[in-house]
Amino acid sequence: MNTIFSHRSIRKFTDQRVEKDILVKIVEAAVRASNTGNMQVYSVVVTTSKEILNELAPCHYNQPASQAPVQMTFCADFNRFKKWCELRDAVPGYDNFLSFLVGYGDAFLAAQNAALEAENQGLGVCYLGTVLYNAKKVIDILNLPKGVVPVATLVMGYPQETPELTSRLPLEAVLHWDKYQDFTPNSIDNIYSALESSEFTGQLLLANQKNTLAQVFTDNRYPQSTNESVSNQLKLILQEQGFWNL
Amino acid sequence: MNTIFSHRSIRKFTDQRVEKDILVKIVEAAVRASNTGNMQVYSVVVTTSKEILNELAPCHYNQPASQAPVQMTFCADFNRFKKWCELRDAVPGYDNFLSFLVGYGDAFLAAQNAALEAENQGLGVCYLGTVLYNAKKVIDILNLPKGVVPVATLVMGYPQETPELTSRLPLEAVLHWDKYQDFTPNSIDNIYSALESSEFTGQLLLANQKNTLAQVFTDNRYPQSTNESVSNQLKLILQEQGFWNL
Repeated sequence: MNTIFSHRSIRKFTDQRVEKDILVKIVEAAVRASNTGNMQVYSVVVTTSKEILNELAPCHYNQPASQAPVQMTFCADFNRFKKWCELRDAVPGYDNFLSFLVGYGDAFLAAQNAALEAENQGLGVCYLGTVLYNAKKVIDILNLPKGVVPVATLVMGYPQETPELTSRLPLEAVLHWDKYQDFTPNSIDNIYSALESSEFTGQLLLANQKNTLAQVFTDNRYPQSTNESVSNQLKLILQEQGFWNL
Repeated sequence: MNTIFSHRSIRKFTDQRVEKDILVKIVEAAVRASNTGNMQVYSVVVTTSKEILNELAPCHYNQPASQAPVQMTFCADFNRFKKWCELRDAVPGYDNFLSFLVGYGDAFLAAQNAALEAENQGLGVCYLGTVLYNAKKVIDILNLPKGVVPVATLVMGYPQETPELTSRLPLEAVLHWDKYQDFTPNSIDNIYSALESSEFTGQLLLANQKNTLAQVFTDNRYPQSTNESVSNQLKLILQEQGFWNL
């Protein structure tokens, strides 16, 4: 399973187009992922039309990766399932928060299979978390009906860069044996020391004019004000798309 | 990438214990997955203690798979990240819905890497969606602090069964080219016809005393009343765990 351990996010792609049979194979990999009750309550919109890609790019702030030749938009999707229920004399009860979370999780499992299969096919991939920030625009551009919410964007194409493997925190940052062992100031220091003393962090602090790496995240990259306004937008979207029956 | 295409959920396991180095390798695979901003805002509790497994099993309704020798509970986790921010003169703003969804998605990407690496190591795996149904109990048993919500349980062990590959709907049930093409009654009929006419479905209808397969889902497996009560519980849990600053 070298594909898992050699993953790098790719943000620059060649002009080479990705053949349709490869894209189909990638979606076939996606649907092999586990999913809740085998209901398959997710969908994937595979966009290769230059025109539609150009409409989508601003939803991702025109970041370099948004210029990829393929965008796969994974959605939590109860639309098809509900239509089926209604045609079969069954009353669907999926206009609620749990159902959204079920579709959300299933979409991510499918997306990760797609990411790995794409890499296995020689493509580079990158997730764009920005889809949550501009979900309403994505809904409009891709004609997503009620019951469908975009949750993960995976772009792909043939790589035009070969970045280093990204570092991760030591395993004890995320791994707990048997039960959760909460962190002490000391264990936090140990977990973050290598990252904080790296040359990469030094450059980031200079570029962002900050004293600590944590401030780069809280003040510049993921500030509270943005998090809160996007949270409120997402709640409205869940209402509009029919997942918020309170 | 045969592992992706040969995945079967395994629900019966031998007594053979899973060596710690294999579990570590699986978590190492999990952390190689993409994650938002490389914040790694998820965690995984790897439970092998028989005593704690016995406490967890009822959270999963004692279903056969809950008897597996290993449970990995993947969590959306801003606890460690917040503690780090506070120790570094940075003000974290992650007590909101977006942050929960970010951690939720990252946890699922990590979980799917873990699932595939476990299979690659000769183990069988199964996701237990029931973790969302009894999240409060899981929080109590695993000592999950504020900022941590369990979102996916992945059980594993050496397989004691060799089930057939589970069927999936035709690809057009989930795959849309360029934009979403909504379904007609005719396209719904085509998508579900093979599943509905299968012997497996016939047996399910008999066992569940239902006229249509959709009714098995809406009336028995995923009924509205349960979906709504779990939705309300989950909202309370997000409040208690600090992801619901409105």
